[in-house]
Amino acid sequence: MDKRSENIPNIIIRRLPIYYKHLKKLKNRAKEYISSEELAELTGFSSSLIRKDLSYFGNFGRKSYGYDIYCLLQELSIIMGFNHPKNLIIVGAGHLGQALVHNKGYEERGYKLKGVFDKNPKLIGLFLDDIKIRSVEEMCDFVKEEKIDIAALTVPKGVAQKTAELLIEAGVIGIWDFTEVALKVPNNILLEEQHINEGLCKLSCKINQNFN
Amino acid sequence: MDKRSENIPNIIIRRLPIYYKHLKKLKNRAKEYISSEELAELTGFSSSLIRKDLSYFGNFGRKSYGYDIYCLLQELSIIMGFNHPKNLIIVGAGHLGQALVHNKGYEERGYKLKGVFDKNPKLIGLFLDDIKIRSVEEMCDFVKEEKIDIAALTVPKGVAQKTAELLIEAGVIGIWDFTEVALKVPNNILLEEQHINEGLCKLSCKINQNFN
Repeated sequence: MDKRSENIPNIIIRRLPIYYKHLKKLKNRAKEYISSEELAELTGFSSSLIRKDLSYFGNFGRKSYGYDIYCLLQELSIIMGFNHPKNLIIVGAGHLGQALVHNKGYEERGYKLKGVFDKNPKLIGLFLDDIKIRSVEEMCDFVKEEKIDIAALTVPKGVAQKTAELLIEAGVIGIWDFTEVALKVPNNILLEEQHINEGLCKLSCKINQNFN
Repeated sequence: MDKRSENIPNIIIRRLPIYYKHLKKLKNRAKEYISSEELAELTGFSSSLIRKDLSYFGNFGRKSYGYDIYCLLQELSIIMGFNHPKNLIIVGAGHLGQALVHNKGYEERGYKLKGVFDKNPKLIGLFLDDIKIRSVEEMCDFVKEEKIDIAALTVPKGVAQKTAELLIEAGVIGIWDFTEVALKVPNNILLEEQHINEGLCKLSCKINQNFN
């Protein structure tokens, strides 16, 4: 049992992947230390908030050097449970589902992509890399047998809620939702909504400011 | 010139699409008013922060009713410049690029998808819906001629920086970046990084808490 990962407030959980993303880039550029001020510049959070967030998990700072990027990344990985293996399926093998099959981010975060499902007979049986597209009819049994934790949902809006319910009944504990539907799930189910259009909103907002 | 959209701090801009997303869902469910407390529950931000953010743009509250959802959505659309037309291209017509062609979120936010580019001869000339995949060789001229504002970048990591530079030189003012590369762009260029793996990080973190 790890004290560090108990009951982290949701609002901090939202910021952890952002710290992780920026620190990883810096590590790839062989940078060793970073100050909370530099991290504030990169993330848009205030330096005092960053110091508070990071002190929540331990002491990574070295006076006058700043934070040790390598140690901080290691610690963030542990806090975010990347060492805890998780089984994933993708439901919906349209363009977005297929793009998700080719996502390179799973292994690093402890996810294993176990299967892809669709209802289109033209897709069923095809392989994407070494992953076979299976019929949604097999989905629930597969979730049970392969102990699937998370389902990425990229089905059409009209079947999103029903598909989510089937997945939950079969035993998934979380849904990575790309459908842009307001899914209703029980309180004990993790729901992570992925709205790519948020990026478009932010760009539009910034352009609007420049042009006014 | 609209006072409301001048110099909105970056940190508020990050929250606007999140308000918009939740309010839109509520409007679709025919809800008329919402309190800052309810909005806090949905967004994870504190109710005092929400009141502060929204008062920044005007007064949408009605005592004992809460905020008028329709008015707030209208105002957020204006603040985020959805009424300002923007031309978009997608560079990279792989799985993700093709998924982006089929994204339904452009029109609502004022974007017009004008073209898709790839270097793969097998893709060039094909149509995705009514959008023809063109050669990247034509990309820079197209940006100039069609007055493209934003390029969605879904090219392989190895060519991401070079492609971004070509686009910027040709005249785009913003890049919607899916490459997960640390792009270097001039200060006057808007860069919006879209990291879908942030969702996976948050799910992993929450699962880790449940299991510890």
